[in-house]
Amino acid sequence: MPSRARFLPILEWGRSYSGKTFVSDIVAALIVTIMLIPQSLAYAMLAGLPPEVGLYASIAPILAYALFGSSRTLAVGPVAVVSLMTLTAAGSVAPPGSAEFIAAALVLALLSGLFLLLMGVLRLGFLANLLSHPVVSGFITASGILIATSQLKSLLGIRAEGGTMPELVAGLWANLGDTSLPTLAIGLASTAFLFWVRKGLKPLLLAAGLAPRAADLLAKAGPIVAVLVSTVAVVALDLEAAGVRVVGQIPQSLPPLTVPPFDLELWMTLAIPALLLSIIGFVESVSVAQTLAARRRERIDPDQELIGLGAANIAASFTGGYPVTGGFARSVVNHEAGAETPAAGAYTAAGILLAALFLTPLLAPLPVATLAATIIVAVLGLVDLRKPVEVFRYSRADFAAMMATIAATLLVGVEPGVMAGVATSLLLYLWRASRPHAAIVGRVPGTEHFRNVERHDVITNPRIVTIRVDESLTYLNARWLEELVLETVAGNPEIEHLILMCPAVNAIDASGLESLEAINRRLADAGIRFHLTEVKGPVMDRLRRSHLVDDLTGAIWLTQHEAFAALAGARPPEAADAAAPPRPEPAPRSRAA
Amino acid sequence: MPSRARFLPILEWGRSYSGKTFVSDIVAALIVTIMLIPQSLAYAMLAGLPPEVGLYASIAPILAYALFGSSRTLAVGPVAVVSLMTLTAAGSVAPPGSAEFIAAALVLALLSGLFLLLMGVLRLGFLANLLSHPVVSGFITASGILIATSQLKSLLGIRAEGGTMPELVAGLWANLGDTSLPTLAIGLASTAFLFWVRKGLKPLLLAAGLAPRAADLLAKAGPIVAVLVSTVAVVALDLEAAGVRVVGQIPQSLPPLTVPPFDLELWMTLAIPALLLSIIGFVESVSVAQTLAARRRERIDPDQELIGLGAANIAASFTGGYPVTGGFARSVVNHEAGAETPAAGAYTAAGILLAALFLTPLLAPLPVATLAATIIVAVLGLVDLRKPVEVFRYSRADFAAMMATIAATLLVGVEPGVMAGVATSLLLYLWRASRPHAAIVGRVPGTEHFRNVERHDVITNPRIVTIRVDESLTYLNARWLEELVLETVAGNPEIEHLILMCPAVNAIDASGLESLEAINRRLADAGIRFHLTEVKGPVMDRLRRSHLVDDLTGAIWLTQHEAFAALAGARPPEAADAAAPPRPEPAPRSRAA
Repeated sequence: MPSRARFLPILEWGRSYSGKTFVSDIVAALIVTIMLIPQSLAYAMLAGLPPEVGLYASIAPILAYALFGSSRTLAVGPVAVVSLMTLTAAGSVAPPGSAEFIAAALVLALLSGLFLLLMGVLRLGFLANLLSHPVVSGFITASGILIATSQLKSLLGIRAEGGTMPELVAGLWANLGDTSLPTLAIGLASTAFLFWVRKGLKPLLLAAGLAPRAADLLAKAGPIVAVLVSTVAVVALDLEAAGVRVVGQIPQSLPPLTVPPFDLELWMTLAIPALLLSIIGFVESVSVAQTLAARRRERIDPDQELIGLGAANIAASFTGGYPVTGGFARSVVNHEAGAETPAAGAYTAAGILLAALFLTPLLAPLPVATLAATIIVAVLGLVDLRKPVEVFRYSRADFAAMMATIAATLLVGVEPGVMAGVATSLLLYLWRASRPHAAIVGRVPGTEHFRNVERHDVITNPRIVTIRVDESLTYLNARWLEELVLETVAGNPEIEHLILMCPAVNAIDASGLESLEAINRRLADAGIRFHLTEVKGPVMDRLRRSHLVDDLTGAIWLTQHEAFAALAGARPPEAADAAAPPRPEPAPRSRAA
Repeated sequence: MPSRARFLPILEWGRSYSGKTFVSDIVAALIVTIMLIPQSLAYAMLAGLPPEVGLYASIAPILAYALFGSSRTLAVGPVAVVSLMTLTAAGSVAPPGSAEFIAAALVLALLSGLFLLLMGVLRLGFLANLLSHPVVSGFITASGILIATSQLKSLLGIRAEGGTMPELVAGLWANLGDTSLPTLAIGLASTAFLFWVRKGLKPLLLAAGLAPRAADLLAKAGPIVAVLVSTVAVVALDLEAAGVRVVGQIPQSLPPLTVPPFDLELWMTLAIPALLLSIIGFVESVSVAQTLAARRRERIDPDQELIGLGAANIAASFTGGYPVTGGFARSVVNHEAGAETPAAGAYTAAGILLAALFLTPLLAPLPVATLAATIIVAVLGLVDLRKPVEVFRYSRADFAAMMATIAATLLVGVEPGVMAGVATSLLLYLWRASRPHAAIVGRVPGTEHFRNVERHDVITNPRIVTIRVDESLTYLNARWLEELVLETVAGNPEIEHLILMCPAVNAIDASGLESLEAINRRLADAGIRFHLTEVKGPVMDRLRRSHLVDDLTGAIWLTQHEAFAALAGARPPEAADAAAPPRPEPAPRSRAA
């Protein structure tokens, strides 16, 4: 991305905006708007907020992202996992739905926006790397289960609060007797319908001759149909009188101008949740944006994404919203419906604005159970139970981090879940990084190649030990290296030369260097000379800036073969073997690659 | 180390104990005892504890280490840096010298012992890796400066409290007018004498015909001479009446049996300081132990060291001591004086016990200024101002971590200092790990070698892009890899094949795998086939347990040359160059190395 467009990508795509692009964008915006209305209401209620907050969170934030975001088709707004995290965080300072709770949600959006902006400007996006794929996947799956469980109460028309599975299940169990049958009927019917739309409708539409993409998009309209039908049913059958909870009056209004309260204690309390929420939101959003961009050989700039999402959340905090991020399903719909530029987002914002101004009276009789059904069907799509199996087969360490995340999320809560995942991944990474692979190697007869003595039948020399280290030498494994070398020479009086073979050493940090110096000194005390071989070009360039090159009791050799041959005093006997042709010159090596 | 000796190394060395070994050990113990008496008193007073606590901390802990430690010559007891950390930690809950303070020191020793033991049993010693060499070096240097500054008050005979440089300097400045001239005279004379012993005595002794080792050992006796002379001077000149502060009555006693108070709140307060203190102590101690072991081609077991040091600290907490670890100077003396087994430690403990029982009355008139002088001379030896320069030249990232540690230690305190160092190192490590070195490569004409297109004049093909990644693919760089690939293909419609060349990829974790799968899918969406080349044997073994091998739109090639040649459709023209002899067979590769 050219530098002039840094911080304001609209300068890039805005200048080539045409009538054709406008039509594509407006069609996509219409489809996304229809999809977003029930979703916005549903996710706001999941977050413990009045339904209109969901609409407000889908207006200004979308505009802000359209100005600052780098993805052309990402659709920003309320999403399930971030809504759950909002409920948990704001719920820790005030009861859901209260004025203090709504204010806390504004603060969360503001803080989360500021964190994202700061990370974008300081290019700290790499911190999101701390969330490994298995941890994110485990967290999303566990959150999906938590959210679906939390919505069962609305499906049953009962009360059940709590942020963990044991609390939710206990609450549901205790109040099961209060189940409202009309509510349950609407809830189950909506759920069944939405599942059928998801799985069964598309084949029918295809059979009816629709193009696959149109069939896909039509199938996405399922929720709005459920909303319409169930709303009509409530009015027609007067189900509200029969105990069916409805959304109720939604103010007919532009998004209000709000100012998040500045209360230092509140900010401190919400800082960590806001940080976790923004990183989770960013990670999810970037992955969607990258997938969509790649389809058109475009790319997104993750640092710019941080700025775009930061701006969106700050916009949310000043317009009566709550934390937002890029949503997976709606972005795919936006993309597949043909959106070409972020202007499609602006048109979507206009659509939601019109809905907030004119459609809200029609939504009053909408049953909450229908919204719960749309949430359940949406989040069950996030639950991926095959993933843990795959990860288990591939890597036990990643599986452990994933399980720690899932268990902590389900049993303790969303924030401990994320933190457990990050901590477990990091500990396991550090543990592995602290004991990399290394092998004692010997020469393969008749060649210049050196291989692991435990795996191959190779030539060794009792006076010369060669250790090949298959990792960069950093502070995480510096002590391991010292131990490895000392262990190798301990109680072995025959050794005169120790060679460290470095073809896989991509870097040596100051601790690695100091360990090499300590090894050199200790081996000197023990009467052993210390050599390095096959040091890579950039690593060697840096070593030249240290004392090691001068202090080394041995030498730094270009090739292991050269070192072994020279130190063994003469070419070993089988080198004279006539079958192996002598090489005319040393093979070129990737010294300066 | 054979398994029977795990947890109890005495079973190993005990069975070969002979009369000759006994004599060596007893001589070393005598020399260490003489050195340890003034040090124990001085460091206890540095820690804000009564002097006898230093003696007690040099009895049972030494015995416990002799039973459980793996180093044959490490001398355990009070050391400067751990004493400073004890002062800071216990000082945060009670005023130095108070009964609560002494109790807090016992709790610190107990907690620190339990942490060490736990880390040893669970083999968590790798956590000590989080302290990089530059961070430890910076911390030790800053601590040395802090300690030396804190002792100036005793040299001047004034009061000045505080745990940071600004506090200490302000305190000294404010009370400078109270300076006691006789105290200052003793202090300066002792300091000058001790510096002379350190630098000037050894050459004299050598000139007088002493063997170098004997000269070294005799030079180490400097502190005891300063103690004797200044004590005699105080008594002879009645300097106590002239305002010279003396150590005063020290109880003549066996180490008392103590029980650290069980107070959960106190334990919680001291847990983090105890953890930091034990890790710092462990890191210092292991480095000394390794250096000494290597001289005799022996080795130590770091996990066993954790157990040994843990036992020593727990012993300290039940016998009126305070946190201990392996001391550098005294371990070197022990080693050079000829100690052969941990039994030397046991004899040292006996020596200190005799001192506690019979010598303490003689120490009452010992001036505190002399002890301050021994501390100052000892800790200035820890200050290494050349190291930052070296580290700066070698690695800016390590230098940044070192400076963060030094600044935080001097300006905020020892615990924030350690934590700042760990956090800075880790952040910089993660930052570097998140953007490893990679290059787009092309073929060197007339060879099968592929080099960076930016550094070499190489052959490329507009339809084929090869990226060589010089790092393992882990969750820390998985997103970077996705961005790199998308950035490379973005806006480049000619590309048909993207090759990832993996000769330096030592591992691929689940996130790396998922990124490869995402890249494969996204490239497929963009109509580009994705290939891997030169995948190492162990990495390939693991990839076979994933879907990637089946899903890959391209292939996994043994060599880059093979892939490039096949995908380019034919051998490129210059391969026919008669000057370059065709290779009879592909060079063997380290597939299963």
